[in-house]
Amino acid sequence: MRAVVRRNKQLVCDEIAELTPGAGQVLVKTLACGICGSDLHALHHMEHMIETSRRASGGGDGGPMGGGFDPTADTVFGHEFCAEILEHGPGTTGLLKPGTRVVSVPATITGTGVELLGYSNNLPGGFAERMILSEMMLLEVKNGLPTDQAALTEPFAVGAHAVAKARLDKDSVSLVIGCGPVGLAVIAGLKAKGHGPVIAADYSPRRRAAAEMLGADLVIDPAAESPHARWEAFGVPTARAAQNMARMMGKTFGQPVVFECVGSPGILQHLIEASPAGSQIVVAGVCMETDKIEPAIAITKEIELTFVFGYSPEEFARTLHQISEGVIDVSRVVTGKVGLSEVAQAFVTLGDPESHVKILVEPGR
Amino acid sequence: MRAVVRRNKQLVCDEIAELTPGAGQVLVKTLACGICGSDLHALHHMEHMIETSRRASGGGDGGPMGGGFDPTADTVFGHEFCAEILEHGPGTTGLLKPGTRVVSVPATITGTGVELLGYSNNLPGGFAERMILSEMMLLEVKNGLPTDQAALTEPFAVGAHAVAKARLDKDSVSLVIGCGPVGLAVIAGLKAKGHGPVIAADYSPRRRAAAEMLGADLVIDPAAESPHARWEAFGVPTARAAQNMARMMGKTFGQPVVFECVGSPGILQHLIEASPAGSQIVVAGVCMETDKIEPAIAITKEIELTFVFGYSPEEFARTLHQISEGVIDVSRVVTGKVGLSEVAQAFVTLGDPESHVKILVEPGR
Repeated sequence: MRAVVRRNKQLVCDEIAELTPGAGQVLVKTLACGICGSDLHALHHMEHMIETSRRASGGGDGGPMGGGFDPTADTVFGHEFCAEILEHGPGTTGLLKPGTRVVSVPATITGTGVELLGYSNNLPGGFAERMILSEMMLLEVKNGLPTDQAALTEPFAVGAHAVAKARLDKDSVSLVIGCGPVGLAVIAGLKAKGHGPVIAADYSPRRRAAAEMLGADLVIDPAAESPHARWEAFGVPTARAAQNMARMMGKTFGQPVVFECVGSPGILQHLIEASPAGSQIVVAGVCMETDKIEPAIAITKEIELTFVFGYSPEEFARTLHQISEGVIDVSRVVTGKVGLSEVAQAFVTLGDPESHVKILVEPGR
Repeated sequence: MRAVVRRNKQLVCDEIAELTPGAGQVLVKTLACGICGSDLHALHHMEHMIETSRRASGGGDGGPMGGGFDPTADTVFGHEFCAEILEHGPGTTGLLKPGTRVVSVPATITGTGVELLGYSNNLPGGFAERMILSEMMLLEVKNGLPTDQAALTEPFAVGAHAVAKARLDKDSVSLVIGCGPVGLAVIAGLKAKGHGPVIAADYSPRRRAAAEMLGADLVIDPAAESPHARWEAFGVPTARAAQNMARMMGKTFGQPVVFECVGSPGILQHLIEASPAGSQIVVAGVCMETDKIEPAIAITKEIELTFVFGYSPEEFARTLHQISEGVIDVSRVVTGKVGLSEVAQAFVTLGDPESHVKILVEPGR
């Protein structure tokens, strides 16, 4: 079958081996699969991602990516997919019939462990005509929900998880810094839970328009004005000495929450300094480089840095439901579609934030 | 009156102006005042502390240290004190009579704001024969509690606050990294709230002995064995891939809590890597230098960095009560006492962690 293979740090369209579903598994046809920022990073920096994963696991093994992952071997990316069931393997229930559209967390259970689809040498991700999924992980895409929108379940589940980790109350005014795919998912997650006002900031006009589309109440160009100043206008206490003293004297105020969705070095320290004392900074942007912070300032302000990653299966399922019900309106998020032969070019195009919000790969195109 | 004055980055014994209590204020005689690690740092790096405070306040003014603090002007350190009431100013209630021993959070309210005692050009801290306190901040030291122990209320309140910021449950096994004054206060705070087992680690034999004295259940020399490995033996889940996967699959376990009480560059990243996925790291050690972290590892492990500072007046009052009642046994914490003329030498001596746990200054000595 055809697939886009990462080989020698390049993406090539090639034939790969056909797949046979094992125990508890199903063979599916990939209908659509989004290109994620992590894929862009992994194309050139897979070794670094594996090293990060290894260190995150305490050095004992491969971490979330699994033990034997080889960055020099072929990999087929793609973990934001919607697919159609083709064939059931042994030991499956067959409750969802062939032809049913499904989504799944991108992790397939095998006899030896779990393969993270999109970052595995053993199973292809969604930039291939077919995939192997675990039957127990499948979620049916109900009639009426377009395939394109179902494929967005995964990136939007990331936002739901970040919001779940935030200590928000109903009156909280949230600040979302960065309106790339992670920031948009956070905005949608906040609005889906009824939070507001949500203030969003990004230098890119295209991304600001997307933030507005996903329900941000106030969208700001940080080059023109300070998002923190606008935040203050909503009654969020500022980082002035009077606030520090009030805190020291035992006065309390609601905890302001900032979502960091940029993922570049320097942004953490910027937010530590710009945010009010006592703020929670939910770090959802994935900064892959070494970063510098000033702990003494974070201490003086009693900042809380909550690093978040992924989602639970429940958050994933709830996100699919919310997209189906229109609670999260993703109808205009997809701005481009490509076939397998155009994926390499799409990776280049996505380097410019003005170009697209989300590009889907359609292997059958 | 006599005081130890910081002048030209040196400590000199000198005569300073007598004090007159203003509205709502009392004049007190300083009985004992501890030397804090912050004082040691401030002796040589006051400019940097002020800059940190200014940046922590959003750059708008002087931050917790107040707007007009001048590092080149005279300062009298000392914020961990027990004192005796001498004289009441106008507009006071006089409920606590002259002769009563008191402690107070080291902040005196003046007509123009709040002076942080020990870091003020306008009012002396506890390394002076007398001080000005706010009557409304005074807490009586009840009969029977030695002055030396009452003077330890302030540093131990820091531990109570750090513990209050930790999301511990009754079964939590806490890890305290660093057994200097902050680490000891955290250990005492944990045991005062009934938490345990508490595992404490320090390279210094003297500090390890102090940790044991304050109730640590297991005290470890990190040069000889890994505190995290011992933690694991208590059933705390480790940072291995299986745990990451369990988390991704929606399995939950209690949140492990580590208290960072070292305050040196590099320790945060060390703890991010050494601690189990999902850990809360309560950052109580005050690192005054720029530090480096790897956000991608913190994200993959969903680490939470909770920076903590100071205490509330309630925590301060509760700490005094717990010391009075013997819930926190600080009877062997003070390992040295000096008069004003010996303070400069004591600052040098305290550079060696083997030398002392806590030195008190007795201005009347």
